[in-house]
Amino acid sequence: MQNQVQELTLRTARRSQLIEITREVAEAVARSGVRSGLCVVYVPHTTAAVCINENADPDVRADVERFVDLLIPEGAKPVLNQFEHSEGNSDSHIKSILTGPSVTLMIENGRPLLGRWQGIYFAEFDGPRTRNTWVKTLADTGV
Amino acid sequence: MQNQVQELTLRTARRSQLIEITREVAEAVARSGVRSGLCVVYVPHTTAAVCINENADPDVRADVERFVDLLIPEGAKPVLNQFEHSEGNSDSHIKSILTGPSVTLMIENGRPLLGRWQGIYFAEFDGPRTRNTWVKTLADTGV
Amino acid sequence: MQNQVQELTLRTARRSQLIEITREVAEAVARSGVRSGLCVVYVPHTTAAVCINENADPDVRADVERFVDLLIPEGAKPVLNQFEHSEGNSDSHIKSILTGPSVTLMIENGRPLLGRWQGIYFAEFDGPRTRNTWVKTLADTGV
Repeated sequence: MQNQVQELTLRTARRSQLIEITREVAEAVARSGVRSGLCVVYVPHTTAAVCINENADPDVRADVERFVDLLIPEGAKPVLNQFEHSEGNSDSHIKSILTGPSVTLMIENGRPLLGRWQGIYFAEFDGPRTRNTWVKTLADTGV
Repeated sequence: MQNQVQELTLRTARRSQLIEITREVAEAVARSGVRSGLCVVYVPHTTAAVCINENADPDVRADVERFVDLLIPEGAKPVLNQFEHSEGNSDSHIKSILTGPSVTLMIENGRPLLGRWQGIYFAEFDGPRTRNTWVKTLADTGV
Repeated sequence: MQNQVQELTLRTARRSQLIEITREVAEAVARSGVRSGLCVVYVPHTTAAVCINENADPDVRADVERFVDLLIPEGAKPVLNQFEHSEGNSDSHIKSILTGPSVTLMIENGRPLLGRWQGIYFAEFDGPRTRNTWVKTLADTGV
């Protein structure tokens, strides 16, 4: 299943929430059988995203969730009361755009390469919802 | 023309503007002949970017354009009157960096894979201008 | 060494600093021997990032550094005094997430393709430190 798109499913619990998916992505890479190449992790939603962040101190995760909400508040808040989108989640779309829909990782020895303190996080900005993440690997071309 | 870089050209009409290019990217992927692989969409400008966003309600697009301008105002605005870049478009460079120069999509059955509500958008931050977008596909390696 | 991950090392001098690495990335691509394909530039840190930005006027670089600090101030500043991460660099993590850990470039004729005014920048958000950047190329698959 080297090149097949694999889908991960998760359930988020709050409006803004970072959920670590490092292990799930590493398992998808292992299942793909690719030993050396690239791995793309892609979020097919418009009010969620994927990012790389510190996986040691959980306070970092909480600080990121809180600050992003300060920077880009929900539609009801004063500075943004001019939002027109009727669903009231324009802030979620903007957070999703600025964080980004995908990350591209290198694969070596069958594992995604991450820095010592890095983890892969699904970034929920309009939860709680059931969400998907797609993972696809591409093996190195022969030398 | 499987691996060839294809260039799309478009004309923007406002200083900040999201223009949907989903169809143009899908056509470039079809022309490449790649049935399964990756597609990179790249914007070769320093005051524009590319993003994935909702393609259903046009109000979302308007809200994103407006909010990004509130968050990162033009140089003339009070909080940023310390901008030094003489062209007066430092805000455009910053918007471009935070949104990002490229997106990487998966290709299956000859089409770029997108979530149900996702579209691909050229993000103009210093228009109106004539702009380019580059598209390149990479086919899966044999298993 | 076509598919090998190459590591660049650099030393940053300030807390927030953009350092151009265009030449170093081009040299890594040349060493890889890949004539046509993709190049991923990846930063394995959680308080730094990589971005594409203007390489002509150095004032742009200074404006970006200054504005990002205005937008996302250090923990000691009023609006963010609710940061809980004990190291006091939560702002650095957030800047790193919004800027992003990687860029994907197209390679043609053995060189990374960049727009006329684009350069590749290592983005330090918690310096000064010694930092690494990883570069990996993937050659086009045969047609």
